[in-house]
Amino acid sequence: MADKKIEAPFFVINPKNFLYGESLMDLARYANQLAKEYKIDILFTAPLTELALVVKECPNLIITAQHMDAVEPGDSMGRVLPESLRQVGVQAVVLNHSDNPLSLAILRKTIERAKEVGLQTIVCADSVQEGQGIAILEPDILLAEPTDLIGKTQISNRDYVTSTIKEIKKINPKVLVEQGAGIRTEKDVEELLGLGADGVGLTSGIIKAHQPKEMMKKMVLAVAAYQKERK
Amino acid sequence: MADKKIEAPFFVINPKNFLYGESLMDLARYANQLAKEYKIDILFTAPLTELALVVKECPNLIITAQHMDAVEPGDSMGRVLPESLRQVGVQAVVLNHSDNPLSLAILRKTIERAKEVGLQTIVCADSVQEGQGIAILEPDILLAEPTDLIGKTQISNRDYVTSTIKEIKKINPKVLVEQGAGIRTEKDVEELLGLGADGVGLTSGIIKAHQPKEMMKKMVLAVAAYQKERK
Amino acid sequence: MADKKIEAPFFVINPKNFLYGESLMDLARYANQLAKEYKIDILFTAPLTELALVVKECPNLIITAQHMDAVEPGDSMGRVLPESLRQVGVQAVVLNHSDNPLSLAILRKTIERAKEVGLQTIVCADSVQEGQGIAILEPDILLAEPTDLIGKTQISNRDYVTSTIKEIKKINPKVLVEQGAGIRTEKDVEELLGLGADGVGLTSGIIKAHQPKEMMKKMVLAVAAYQKERK
Amino acid sequence: MADKKIEAPFFVINPKNFLYGESLMDLARYANQLAKEYKIDILFTAPLTELALVVKECPNLIITAQHMDAVEPGDSMGRVLPESLRQVGVQAVVLNHSDNPLSLAILRKTIERAKEVGLQTIVCADSVQEGQGIAILEPDILLAEPTDLIGKTQISNRDYVTSTIKEIKKINPKVLVEQGAGIRTEKDVEELLGLGADGVGLTSGIIKAHQPKEMMKKMVLAVAAYQKERK
Repeated sequence: MADKKIEAPFFVINPKNFLYGESLMDLARYANQLAKEYKIDILFTAPLTELALVVKECPNLIITAQHMDAVEPGDSMGRVLPESLRQVGVQAVVLNHSDNPLSLAILRKTIERAKEVGLQTIVCADSVQEGQGIAILEPDILLAEPTDLIGKTQISNRDYVTSTIKEIKKINPKVLVEQGAGIRTEKDVEELLGLGADGVGLTSGIIKAHQPKEMMKKMVLAVAAYQKERK
Repeated sequence: MADKKIEAPFFVINPKNFLYGESLMDLARYANQLAKEYKIDILFTAPLTELALVVKECPNLIITAQHMDAVEPGDSMGRVLPESLRQVGVQAVVLNHSDNPLSLAILRKTIERAKEVGLQTIVCADSVQEGQGIAILEPDILLAEPTDLIGKTQISNRDYVTSTIKEIKKINPKVLVEQGAGIRTEKDVEELLGLGADGVGLTSGIIKAHQPKEMMKKMVLAVAAYQKERK
Repeated sequence: MADKKIEAPFFVINPKNFLYGESLMDLARYANQLAKEYKIDILFTAPLTELALVVKECPNLIITAQHMDAVEPGDSMGRVLPESLRQVGVQAVVLNHSDNPLSLAILRKTIERAKEVGLQTIVCADSVQEGQGIAILEPDILLAEPTDLIGKTQISNRDYVTSTIKEIKKINPKVLVEQGAGIRTEKDVEELLGLGADGVGLTSGIIKAHQPKEMMKKMVLAVAAYQKERK
Repeated sequence: MADKKIEAPFFVINPKNFLYGESLMDLARYANQLAKEYKIDILFTAPLTELALVVKECPNLIITAQHMDAVEPGDSMGRVLPESLRQVGVQAVVLNHSDNPLSLAILRKTIERAKEVGLQTIVCADSVQEGQGIAILEPDILLAEPTDLIGKTQISNRDYVTSTIKEIKKINPKVLVEQGAGIRTEKDVEELLGLGADGVGLTSGIIKAHQPKEMMKKMVLAVAAYQKERK
């Protein structure tokens, strides 16, 4: 049931609900081509409704749900069923995004459900302390976007990113740390990987770029270059 | 953008999260065949993740989402986007189910969003008063499952069903009233339509029946017979 | 157990969580004096924690809770128990404020609980349709603050207020309609009562006034003058 | 602004919403007398509405709120304002109870607000992992009620309690660990303190006891005896 475990350095494209239909599929197809060509792990999220369609056309992407509920098959209505996600070929799920905050008890149960059905988990945290607390629950990936960062200068940012990663790995060395705040160019991608991030993820850096596909390609190339160099 | 408006007498099959994958598709395909053969409006709900797949294989069903959010395309994550539902061919949506209760303000906004994208709405109410309050918001269908009914004898049930329908239509004569509580056989279907229900809907009466497909067929036949008789 | 039923024209002072401690009590004491002197129904809301203290010092005010839960005495924690509100002398409760939106099913149950313990209910609605839907549930007072109003010119405002009141009373003629949007001076109070509002309520018009007590007095005088004139 | 820091061994009486009015005050007064006589830290929770009244009559108890919101003074309605709790003399607050589950981000903010106004925090956790995650946020007390415990034999219970405490203190040695599951007699109190609990807390063990006050006294005596012995 398990897919290949996601490996660093990975790249996450998260169109949220900005794209749907053909514009979503168009971006996904291009990402799929990049994943095939550059052989890096690319996670691609899509609205729940369109996950099955994107899976079918994009076998080289790690298709990722934007939310999931801790329900079991049975008497629930409109909740996102883990088994159904897995059934259509989804491989990972984002949890605890600020649009779907979960109590720690529910988060723990949802991570367990994900493991049961073979979904990898990307769990959001908005502070170092929250990240450490979540690291104890053993998600596969921890997305650290400290609101504390906002407004900081670039230099303190660097210190901050480095120490965030260190503090989280201190609690759980196996968890992969994704960084996502404010990535605008391939230089930001390089820098974050250089500072120790296991992966990078972004929405507006691609969706709102002048040329989304070109920007996506440059960023993927930066990840691939980092990967080659590390070997 | 609009589909054909749902007409009485209609039939709703709501597998909730009891079924997914092949068992869901198998039931849907059979329902599709019945809809084609008996020419009645059959609504079929499915988990959000599998709606697109069911739409593709079942062109004669009115594929229905089990929930939707009032979001616009844009910066939301994991929320059920109306445009995305419509994009994959969904035609209707259930709102305010007890698993996803909505405040009246949000319900009003969600019904508006549904109208904007061309989705028909089935809104749940658990009492006559709640049903009347919701009827003012002009949903297409109102699903009246008064908890007050539970434990009542069959006879008072009849009075209750009749008066529920009357009270709701008094507020808004255009709204179609669906009845759903405790339907177990085709006799129950006949009786509820006879009492004035515009449609009937059920989950366990089919899912937990000894022979789900056979039971579904008998019920659809009861609806078709009622339709013929009324003409 | 029942107190005197609130009568038009009434006046509602709602300090929300802007005031607490001595600044809250100071405003409450002055309102209490005005209620005694001018013999009109003044509702005064306070944080849950301080309701008991305000009741003790202000016997002429109708002390009002800002929220309540539909719980029964028993195994719930941190929920606002109707019996406990009543016990400390609270006489009314605001429900369905946008900070505490309730599904229609829960709202119905909470209004029932309020009636059981002898609390009068002020229920918020943010549109005419929502107001009509809630009027069916028979609250004592309906607070109509249509977001639709925002940005409208003064003239259409007048039409809007008049028609809102008419539409709500058409559904339930017994419900009292409170108006609250954008009251800044005693002239606004006069105008709204003149347009048919049964009462007026406000937060910032008093809390953020240059001289809160003086403004409150002028407004109460406007209500008292309207009351005298109507007799 | 700060009160005396709560010290082990402490005792928590949590009547939830089972008691209000005179029956609540009667139990509180007796607990107050016991706290004075036996000189141990007794926390007593009460419905939000009655906290101010209990504080006035019970100066020897650490009066504790059953919930609190992370709001600031200002434009919120019906939310439990930290400053208002503090204002009426409340000294501590229970957070993340299963009736009021908080996301980790909100929990962190609420603990910060509590520290700002000088309230001590008792945070609930329903598993060892959740307890460890919360310990990182530095609450004063962690209430560990692992649902995992349910149905276990007494012997494995002992191991479980000991290891829970050890695992939580490994993450944060300063946090006090309260145990609460299934305490029925003074023997249970003795045993849990002997196993390393810093405090014990209970609802039904007292509220539903044949003679609540007598049972409370026996339990307090057990805590006092343990305290004396440890010195």
